[in-house]
Amino acid sequence: MHIVEKNIYYCTIRRMKLFIAQLNPVVGDINGNFGKIMHAARTADAEQADLIITPELCLTGYPPLDLLERTDFLDTSDTFISYLKKELPKDRMTIVGAPFRELIDNETRLFSAAYVFHNGHIVDVIKKTLLPTYDVFDEARYFTTNNEPPRVITLGREKIGITICEDIWNDELFAKTRRYQKNPLAELMKKKPTIVVNISASPWESGKHLYRRDMIVHATKRWKTTLVYVNQTGANDALIFDGRSMIVREGRILWAGPHYEPCLESFDLMHYKKRPPVDVTKTGDLFLALTLGIKDYFAKQGFTKAVIGLSGGIDSALVAVLAVHALGKDNVLGVLMPSEFSSGHSISDAEFLAANLGIQTLVLPIQSPFESMKALLRTQIASSTLPDAMKEKITADDVTEENIQSRVRGMLLMALSNKYGYLMLATGNKSEMSTGYATLYGDLCGALAPLGDVFKTDVYTLSEYVNASYGRCIPDNIITKAPSAELRPNQKDQDTLPPYEILDGILRAYLEEGLPFDDIIEKFNKTTATWVIRTLHQNEYKRRQAPLILKTSKKSLRPGRYFPIVQKYHRHF
Amino acid sequence: MHIVEKNIYYCTIRRMKLFIAQLNPVVGDINGNFGKIMHAARTADAEQADLIITPELCLTGYPPLDLLERTDFLDTSDTFISYLKKELPKDRMTIVGAPFRELIDNETRLFSAAYVFHNGHIVDVIKKTLLPTYDVFDEARYFTTNNEPPRVITLGREKIGITICEDIWNDELFAKTRRYQKNPLAELMKKKPTIVVNISASPWESGKHLYRRDMIVHATKRWKTTLVYVNQTGANDALIFDGRSMIVREGRILWAGPHYEPCLESFDLMHYKKRPPVDVTKTGDLFLALTLGIKDYFAKQGFTKAVIGLSGGIDSALVAVLAVHALGKDNVLGVLMPSEFSSGHSISDAEFLAANLGIQTLVLPIQSPFESMKALLRTQIASSTLPDAMKEKITADDVTEENIQSRVRGMLLMALSNKYGYLMLATGNKSEMSTGYATLYGDLCGALAPLGDVFKTDVYTLSEYVNASYGRCIPDNIITKAPSAELRPNQKDQDTLPPYEILDGILRAYLEEGLPFDDIIEKFNKTTATWVIRTLHQNEYKRRQAPLILKTSKKSLRPGRYFPIVQKYHRHF
Repeated sequence: MHIVEKNIYYCTIRRMKLFIAQLNPVVGDINGNFGKIMHAARTADAEQADLIITPELCLTGYPPLDLLERTDFLDTSDTFISYLKKELPKDRMTIVGAPFRELIDNETRLFSAAYVFHNGHIVDVIKKTLLPTYDVFDEARYFTTNNEPPRVITLGREKIGITICEDIWNDELFAKTRRYQKNPLAELMKKKPTIVVNISASPWESGKHLYRRDMIVHATKRWKTTLVYVNQTGANDALIFDGRSMIVREGRILWAGPHYEPCLESFDLMHYKKRPPVDVTKTGDLFLALTLGIKDYFAKQGFTKAVIGLSGGIDSALVAVLAVHALGKDNVLGVLMPSEFSSGHSISDAEFLAANLGIQTLVLPIQSPFESMKALLRTQIASSTLPDAMKEKITADDVTEENIQSRVRGMLLMALSNKYGYLMLATGNKSEMSTGYATLYGDLCGALAPLGDVFKTDVYTLSEYVNASYGRCIPDNIITKAPSAELRPNQKDQDTLPPYEILDGILRAYLEEGLPFDDIIEKFNKTTATWVIRTLHQNEYKRRQAPLILKTSKKSLRPGRYFPIVQKYHRHF
Repeated sequence: MHIVEKNIYYCTIRRMKLFIAQLNPVVGDINGNFGKIMHAARTADAEQADLIITPELCLTGYPPLDLLERTDFLDTSDTFISYLKKELPKDRMTIVGAPFRELIDNETRLFSAAYVFHNGHIVDVIKKTLLPTYDVFDEARYFTTNNEPPRVITLGREKIGITICEDIWNDELFAKTRRYQKNPLAELMKKKPTIVVNISASPWESGKHLYRRDMIVHATKRWKTTLVYVNQTGANDALIFDGRSMIVREGRILWAGPHYEPCLESFDLMHYKKRPPVDVTKTGDLFLALTLGIKDYFAKQGFTKAVIGLSGGIDSALVAVLAVHALGKDNVLGVLMPSEFSSGHSISDAEFLAANLGIQTLVLPIQSPFESMKALLRTQIASSTLPDAMKEKITADDVTEENIQSRVRGMLLMALSNKYGYLMLATGNKSEMSTGYATLYGDLCGALAPLGDVFKTDVYTLSEYVNASYGRCIPDNIITKAPSAELRPNQKDQDTLPPYEILDGILRAYLEEGLPFDDIIEKFNKTTATWVIRTLHQNEYKRRQAPLILKTSKKSLRPGRYFPIVQKYHRHF
């Protein structure tokens, strides 16, 4: 669709040296983040940059969540804003994302803002207009919507227009779903800025950076302008930020920042060498994101070492590879916990993997605690005053005993975690966490579930990518054998679950795409689809107690998905 | 403060028979909730009521959370709205809370609405204006704010003004904090309704009903009007709804509905007998709320039986009492799991308690699985290739072995839960869950934590209330002895934690009141306060994996509190 735009300003950029501070702040570490901003500004000063740009809320780190409800937290933020005013290089204009309080009608309102520092003053504070409140975003919980008319800030011969993250995501010609009625960028363009700045903390999900790039290319073409996009990098809890800041002029990408790492770089809008975005495959991108997610979860809490249960299966193999890439091989302990139901190849496959990765292993056969637990239950229940029906039931193995095995393993790994200060990584993937094919307090133990938002089919793709890119570290047998929990003789995942291609297809349609049930059963078998969706909902209570999941898709199991545990909707199907 | 109000309409009520349907809907059970609404309407029809009023979103149950994001869910709701149109008694006007979709600027927007049915038509749909998005509320995530001017609906000689829950909570003369700029009730009053209806799903917290009552009394005095307040009852997940619907005319409570149970009752505004609110103490109210929370969690999922670990301590004793009141004594299994560190009185106290309550018990001494787990770790680590420092560390007991005991107990209770289909109740209280004085995958196992939002000091108060009100079922020794986890010889809670009065005081100030740190250290010792607050934040990761907690206070640990796990703010203190 082509429409004629009014009020278009044909920007003519003169000398203007931008400085992109693609930072990795730590949530709540205002002091530390202040240090990072000051370091960036001093570097920019040395490079004689005119305009220094930092990401959204970079003084507090994003997302600060309910820290924003604490007045002492906001007071601390304000204190460091006053330090910035004093200490930032005078001659450079600096844009810093931070919370801003304002008294309106006798009530204090909070805004997500861009502070503009220049010559020892705060020359302006631009407030965010569109507050994302969907999926992982909760901004209406904390912030008030900006209702001021847009304005530009003069810097030399340039007129700078500032937007904050979501403010550029509601273009009526580009957005698939328009969540808001306003398009703040369109309003701003009426003020004829020569440069548009967008400060962001835009959480990564697979493929999102391509959409974002297309959106910015579209916007700069539509408005015939130059847009400087500065995004946070690093991971905070479940969210990974890919950075990928960029400078785009009228649809042409002049400069593309690195992904998954901080970057301090100046860029002269008159004299520059183009730098295109780094090419990466979808799977390669996922691998980098997960590695950063693990790395920052450990580093930002001061942990260095991970403990992982190695079952000989593909999930734990992939988690071990990711952990080695994130933390280094000397910081990963693989624990083999065979039982009577473990096949010989499970142990050897795990050992080959560990040898390939060069990680330390420990073998803890679970037979004795498992037997001891079973025996205790059997003898005590037999001699108890419980009804006969209950006594009878304890004599035969069922899912209870399978869960005990899984829980003994979880307990042993947690014991190592407690004893040695290692963090336990959970190995569950999205397919099994969706269907409850993972034992609560067993497989679901751990600080972090790196694969909790990765379907089993993608676990295979990722494993093949790893073998192709980093030497064949995952033994072929791990990739080719039929997946099994090995909790009873000859058990296979597919005894209980639909084939993973089908299962993942249904989950993707229902969970990620949010397709209506009727559309799903047009594509999939109705009985299978009904089973998958019911099972998904019935296992909500397990996921409520699951470890933190690194978000990789447009809809993770948590956070960003809030379903009641007690509900009966799925019984309608 | 006294101000002169303009536009006040002196209402003159003629014959008008109201019918209050204080329902207990199940979230997502649109079919079942439809049945409850129809049953209420038929009862009202038989009683020749003029106006039938149901709670907010009672067709879907409140809170439906992300079910509202599914179009098939909203389609189902619309289907049942059309059934209501056909099947509701023609001569009665009926107000039903349900979601409402509207196409605005080519985008579908969702509203929380009051459908007004009359004579086989939907005569109006009133949309909610104020969308709570704080604490446990997330309404801006789902709904769009109503921007239509207010209107009244004529019924005989009356003019009915309809508001939805939060719409009456922003009175500029009454509200402590005004969260919104608008006061929809004030706007509505310009239309001179003779009766104001408020449909609500207002989650209970201790003391809130008194504030609510005062607020409604204030509003009806201020606006010289009659307000009919209809609230949901029952519990859905973490939230308990107390009902307590009421009819208030110019500050006088004409009729007060029951608490914690459904009610279908007609009330003639001309000919009535006043019914005052039921008196209840703060502690009695808490007891009733917790009982309902447990009862509905089980009933709405189709479970009848609970399993509880009885340590001989006060927390598990109180949970057992609550479970007996919620589910009946035949549906509660108490499990005693003594270890070498259990004192003699722990076992006898638990046995006395069980005998007093008349519940079945089972004894599972944990020594053998505990020893087996320890021995496995020791022998395997000793013979492993792990470094000597690690080998040495495993030979001495520390918190690791304490956690193993707690986890063996959790595992045994979960085995019983799996084997017999009993739901496990966690016994942790808010004081210990705040400070991490509860073992992840140990004490923190369970489907539901009834005391997770009850401080230890309130556990004592509640236990004394129970003994005073329901016969002395909790043995005195359980109440008087010093609390201990009994995980090492002669351990006492107060070896590790500050005295509970101090601990709870600091937590209440920081967590519930949200007081700034500087205000807290004016009242409490700085070292203690710093320790408590740091410990609270450092244990966020445990709470993220904790069972569902019944909300009882203005700030529960979850849901309604969203703190990052990885953050460094508390290191500022």
